[in-house]
Amino acid sequence: MPVQTHCPGSRTLHFDDSGALRTLDQTQLPFSRREIVLRSADDCERAIATMQVRGAPLIGAVGAWGLAFALADDDSDARLESSLHRLLAARPTAVNLRWALERVRRRVAALPRGQRAPAARDEAAAICDEDADCNRRIGEHGARLLGALASGRPLQILTHCNAGSIATLEHGTALAPLYRLHRSGVPLHVWVDETRPRNQGASLTAWELAAQAVPHTVIVDNAGGLLMRQRRVDAVIVGCDRVAANGDVANKIGTYLKALAAHDNGLPFWVACPVSTIDPQAPDGDAIPIEERDGREVSHVAGRLPDGTIGAVQVVPDGSPVANPGFDVTPARLVSGLITEHGVFEASAEGVAEALAAATAGPAARTAVR
Amino acid sequence: MPVQTHCPGSRTLHFDDSGALRTLDQTQLPFSRREIVLRSADDCERAIATMQVRGAPLIGAVGAWGLAFALADDDSDARLESSLHRLLAARPTAVNLRWALERVRRRVAALPRGQRAPAARDEAAAICDEDADCNRRIGEHGARLLGALASGRPLQILTHCNAGSIATLEHGTALAPLYRLHRSGVPLHVWVDETRPRNQGASLTAWELAAQAVPHTVIVDNAGGLLMRQRRVDAVIVGCDRVAANGDVANKIGTYLKALAAHDNGLPFWVACPVSTIDPQAPDGDAIPIEERDGREVSHVAGRLPDGTIGAVQVVPDGSPVANPGFDVTPARLVSGLITEHGVFEASAEGVAEALAAATAGPAARTAVR
Repeated sequence: MPVQTHCPGSRTLHFDDSGALRTLDQTQLPFSRREIVLRSADDCERAIATMQVRGAPLIGAVGAWGLAFALADDDSDARLESSLHRLLAARPTAVNLRWALERVRRRVAALPRGQRAPAARDEAAAICDEDADCNRRIGEHGARLLGALASGRPLQILTHCNAGSIATLEHGTALAPLYRLHRSGVPLHVWVDETRPRNQGASLTAWELAAQAVPHTVIVDNAGGLLMRQRRVDAVIVGCDRVAANGDVANKIGTYLKALAAHDNGLPFWVACPVSTIDPQAPDGDAIPIEERDGREVSHVAGRLPDGTIGAVQVVPDGSPVANPGFDVTPARLVSGLITEHGVFEASAEGVAEALAAATAGPAARTAVR
Repeated sequence: MPVQTHCPGSRTLHFDDSGALRTLDQTQLPFSRREIVLRSADDCERAIATMQVRGAPLIGAVGAWGLAFALADDDSDARLESSLHRLLAARPTAVNLRWALERVRRRVAALPRGQRAPAARDEAAAICDEDADCNRRIGEHGARLLGALASGRPLQILTHCNAGSIATLEHGTALAPLYRLHRSGVPLHVWVDETRPRNQGASLTAWELAAQAVPHTVIVDNAGGLLMRQRRVDAVIVGCDRVAANGDVANKIGTYLKALAAHDNGLPFWVACPVSTIDPQAPDGDAIPIEERDGREVSHVAGRLPDGTIGAVQVVPDGSPVANPGFDVTPARLVSGLITEHGVFEASAEGVAEALAAATAGPAARTAVR
């Protein structure tokens, strides 16, 4: 079954000609490209809870639209609060969802009734536009760095998990520089880590890259070290969940192992991170709690069954316990730099402080990378 | 479905009371414990080719018994040669299979007909006994090293892939010290890497450890680095496919990443290796060719389907290429020592030379580890 084209540059969340908000059902990827229509707060809540939409920026945006839809029906204070809490409960640990919902509430709470619904729509649209713009700028800064590594042969980039366009409103974070280089004609090949346990690399990153015709190869998570030793990788780029004040990076489990391999082979290891992922309250990586996720993600693997349906096989014997930490911490010393929408910064206390200052000062500020 | 007990100390390949050679069908593990009976060269050839038996020592032993069965029917030179080549073709890249078959041929070729079949049986039995004894001694040496790390809490050991009893005739290599410590009452817990793409950790190592009641937890290959950073691992022990003359170690893909993480966290990283895995013809790891295996191992994951049958799900989209290197090379500098049947040796040119000399001198020789 050929993969259908995901139009480059299109928004992950967009209004169709009839005015309906549409997005891909990501639980069906990579084997089926099915759009869902979001017309109500209930639709948005369901899409978040069932993981039809995932990726922090996209979850936040869908939450914001959900609140806007709720207020279109009833813009009372009671409805504002009840809808906000119901949407929040759809993914209670998603920091970005809370941020987006509270941003919409702040925008509308002091407004008189009658003005709230259009203001909420404005705010949801602004959240979407800002995310797309942030990622476009990450793409510019990252493409400059990675493009400088290009030589006669295709640039070989390794990535882990999915920090791509479908995790965001547009462009992605770690993949934004790769799409930009590809569109500008720089020959490029991406090694895609499968990313057990949920296989977001094999399923989502591979699908995205195929849809945008970016040459790539899927590998198991175990293989990247060998490829780096064989000089078949020029650089590694990943997204991140949270950056501590000292530059330590929390990202999908397995990121640390790839950072070690890049360091051992003298290769750059870049982290693409909107400034919003910096958490100045966490002094270092040890302060970031590690989520322990459902063991079924380890004991079972989901995919396409021979009959074409989506299902799962059990890979761990019944009698054996499993552990499933969701992410790990890469120490700042292994990170070549933080690629933000405000430029590239050292992964250090100084670099993080500069990134935060640049965000306050506005988009023009930028510092040099070590 | 409870895992049935795999009697500790029993041989992976054994004769039952009726004189039939029996072994587990490893393609059915971990979900079904089914024995197969090997009565002929054809049976042995089929068991090797279909991977009902796997693991270098076990494949070699089954091949040797296959040749012995062939000669029991017809001990002509023509039969000796044709059976040897047919058995060899069942797994053409298995170095140990060739070694075992040629060892039987050397034993019988000069003998008069009539004496060949019993001599071949003797030789096959000796191959089995020697493997079990080799691994028992690796277990002794390794248990001394690992036991020295034990403190008040259970010893936390991480292993990759399956270097266990069912890959060998008995005890295993990397798991031999763990079984020995467990039997001697040392509290122990094993972190079991899933080991994509073929999941020998999740399926075989977990099954073995459960069967011998060794406490363990299955993790995805991505998780070990985090656990080491969290001080939840005391040491890593793995088997190996080949050791180069300088001490570089070729083992299952992903081994190098765990060695890097152990080194970064100041943890010992031991390699259990019979002296027969040392290849003095390979000056270093770069001289060891890396096998590229079937891409279907990456694009699909095998396991138990909801209806209880064994099947596979596809995890990579149709349009995406895959790569599947079978093993990687861990540089000697990351290896704390080589645990052989003749003692523990430095992973260095000197250590490898000492191991080879000790093997020539006999079992009494042993040198100190760095």
